[in-house]
Amino acid sequence: MPPTSPDMPPDMPAALPLLPRPGDPRLTRRISGTDQTGASTEISVVEERPLTIYLNSQEIVTAMTIGDYPEYLALGFLRNQGMLLADDIVTGVDYDEEVETVVVRTGRRTSYEEKMKKKTRTSGCAVGTVFGDMMEGLEGLVLPAAALRTSWLYALAREINTTPSLYLEAGAIHGTVLCQGERPLVYMEDVGRHNAVDKIAGFMFRHGIAAGDKILYTTGRLTSEMVIKTALMGIPVLASRSGFTAWGVEIAREVGLTLIGRLRGQRFVCLAGEERLIRDADPAAVANEGARNRRKGADADV
Amino acid sequence: MPPTSPDMPPDMPAALPLLPRPGDPRLTRRISGTDQTGASTEISVVEERPLTIYLNSQEIVTAMTIGDYPEYLALGFLRNQGMLLADDIVTGVDYDEEVETVVVRTGRRTSYEEKMKKKTRTSGCAVGTVFGDMMEGLEGLVLPAAALRTSWLYALAREINTTPSLYLEAGAIHGTVLCQGERPLVYMEDVGRHNAVDKIAGFMFRHGIAAGDKILYTTGRLTSEMVIKTALMGIPVLASRSGFTAWGVEIAREVGLTLIGRLRGQRFVCLAGEERLIRDADPAAVANEGARNRRKGADADV
Repeated sequence: MPPTSPDMPPDMPAALPLLPRPGDPRLTRRISGTDQTGASTEISVVEERPLTIYLNSQEIVTAMTIGDYPEYLALGFLRNQGMLLADDIVTGVDYDEEVETVVVRTGRRTSYEEKMKKKTRTSGCAVGTVFGDMMEGLEGLVLPAAALRTSWLYALAREINTTPSLYLEAGAIHGTVLCQGERPLVYMEDVGRHNAVDKIAGFMFRHGIAAGDKILYTTGRLTSEMVIKTALMGIPVLASRSGFTAWGVEIAREVGLTLIGRLRGQRFVCLAGEERLIRDADPAAVANEGARNRRKGADADV
Repeated sequence: MPPTSPDMPPDMPAALPLLPRPGDPRLTRRISGTDQTGASTEISVVEERPLTIYLNSQEIVTAMTIGDYPEYLALGFLRNQGMLLADDIVTGVDYDEEVETVVVRTGRRTSYEEKMKKKTRTSGCAVGTVFGDMMEGLEGLVLPAAALRTSWLYALAREINTTPSLYLEAGAIHGTVLCQGERPLVYMEDVGRHNAVDKIAGFMFRHGIAAGDKILYTTGRLTSEMVIKTALMGIPVLASRSGFTAWGVEIAREVGLTLIGRLRGQRFVCLAGEERLIRDADPAAVANEGARNRRKGADADV
C-alpha cells in the first residue's frame, strides 16, 4: 500500500470484482431521435463530461470522461504520465463535482512540477501524450516472468463479454479489465480507452495492488501508447480482442511484454512474449462467439 | 483556394476520389507470431510512427500516425486547433521524413503563437485537446441548410465498406471520408480517428474545398470532439457506423449539425438535424450487411 493519508478517497471496495454499473443514471441518458423509417426512437447514450485534473496548484489537463471514479482517473493519469512517482505521498484527492475538477495533493511539491513546466515548453500542448518522457521510463524495465494459461484467456474473454456493462447498455465506450488468472478484478469503462486504463492504474496505485501476477485486458487496439502504459504499470500481459500496430509489437518485444490480440471465440494471435503462454486449453473445445457473446454491433475500431 | 505559395506541397490530386493505398509497403508490416494452436502465423499490421508538428519555430505536438500525408495532417491539425486561421497565408510545408517532423510556415507570425503560449499556461500540457478554445470557435456558428438523401447514406456506406483499405488489409485503424452526395471524395485512414479527420481538414484547407455541401463519414464514435471538429470545418452532416455520446448529441443540436449514427445495412439513427433528411430510399430494399460488407472482425470501439 503506498503511503497515503488515511482519509484519502476512495476507499478500497469491500469485495472484488469492481464491475461496471450500467444502471447508474449518471452514466447514460435516454435520447430521442428517428430511425431509418422515420419512426421515433429512443436510445441509451453514454455521458461524456470534462474533468480537469490538478496536481497541487498546477492545472494539468482536461480529460473527457463518463465521470465515474474521477479520483482513480486523476491518480492513474498522473501516475502513467510520470508526474506522480511510485513513492510519492498523496495527502489528498479532492473531487468537486460541480466545477468538474479533481485536485491531487502531494507531500513533495517540486520536482514533477518543474518537469511539467519543462514538458510544457519542449513538447508544446494540444493533443497527444508527452511521448518522449513515457519512453524514458521504459529504459531498464524488466517485466516479471509469469505464466499465462490459454484457459484463462478464454475464460476471461467469455466473462468480460457477457458481464453487464455500459457497452452492452449503450455502446460507444471502451473497457479495460485488470485480471488475475481467470478472475476479472476491476472492470473500468470510459469514452476514451486511455481513461479506462488510467482508472485501473489509479486503483492499483491507491490500493497498492501488485502488478507482476496480473493480466490487463482491453477492448481497444494494441497501440504503442497502450503497450507503454501497461509496461510502466508493471503488468506483464496485455490482451485484446482488437488488433495491433507495428510499433506496439516492437515495444512489447523490447520490454518483454506478452501481447495477445484478436482474441475472439477460440482464436487469438500472440505477437510478443510467447514464452509465457501455457497452452492448456483445447481451442477446438472453445465455442466460437455466439451473437450474445459478441460485443454487439460493435465494429468501428479494432 | 486559400492563399499559399505556389510550390507548397502536396499538389491537388489530378482526380478524385483520393483512396487508401493498402498496398503501400510503408503503411503495413508483416509480423510473425503464433496462433491459438501454437502454429506460426504471419499477419499484416499497420505502422505507427511519431510525427512532430511545428508552426514556424514553435514545436506544437507529436502525433502518432501511419505516416501518409504528413503535410495534410499538420495543416489540418493546426487548422482544427485554431492555430491556423482561415485567412492565414501558408508560405511552406516542409516534411522531413528522416527526423519525422513537419514544419508549417506562415506569413503572420505573432497572434497564434501568443495564443499557443497562453494555451500552454492555462490548459497545461499532456493529453487531450485544448477544449475551451475549440468550444469558443462554435459561438455564432451557423451550418448551412443542406439536403441529405437517405439513398446517399446507403450508397456511401456500401461503397466505403467495400473499398480496398488498410482496414480491410490489417484492421486496427480508423477511416474518415469526405463525401459529396453519394460520392466519396477523400478517404483517409489513420491509427487515431482524429488524425484521419485532421488529414481531411488539411486537404480541404490546402485546396480550398467548400464545406457546405459535404458529408463527413467516420468509422469512429460521435463524441463531442468529433462533432466540434466537423462543425468547425463547416460540414453540416456527420455520419458514422458507430454510436453517440450524450454531449456529442447536445453540441450537434446547438450548432445545427445533422448527426447520423449506427449506420449499418438498412439501419441508422438520427439524433440531431433531422430536418435535412430526405427519405428517398426504401430501407426494406437495402440489403443488410453481408459478411463481405461488414467491417471485418471489427468490434472494439463503437
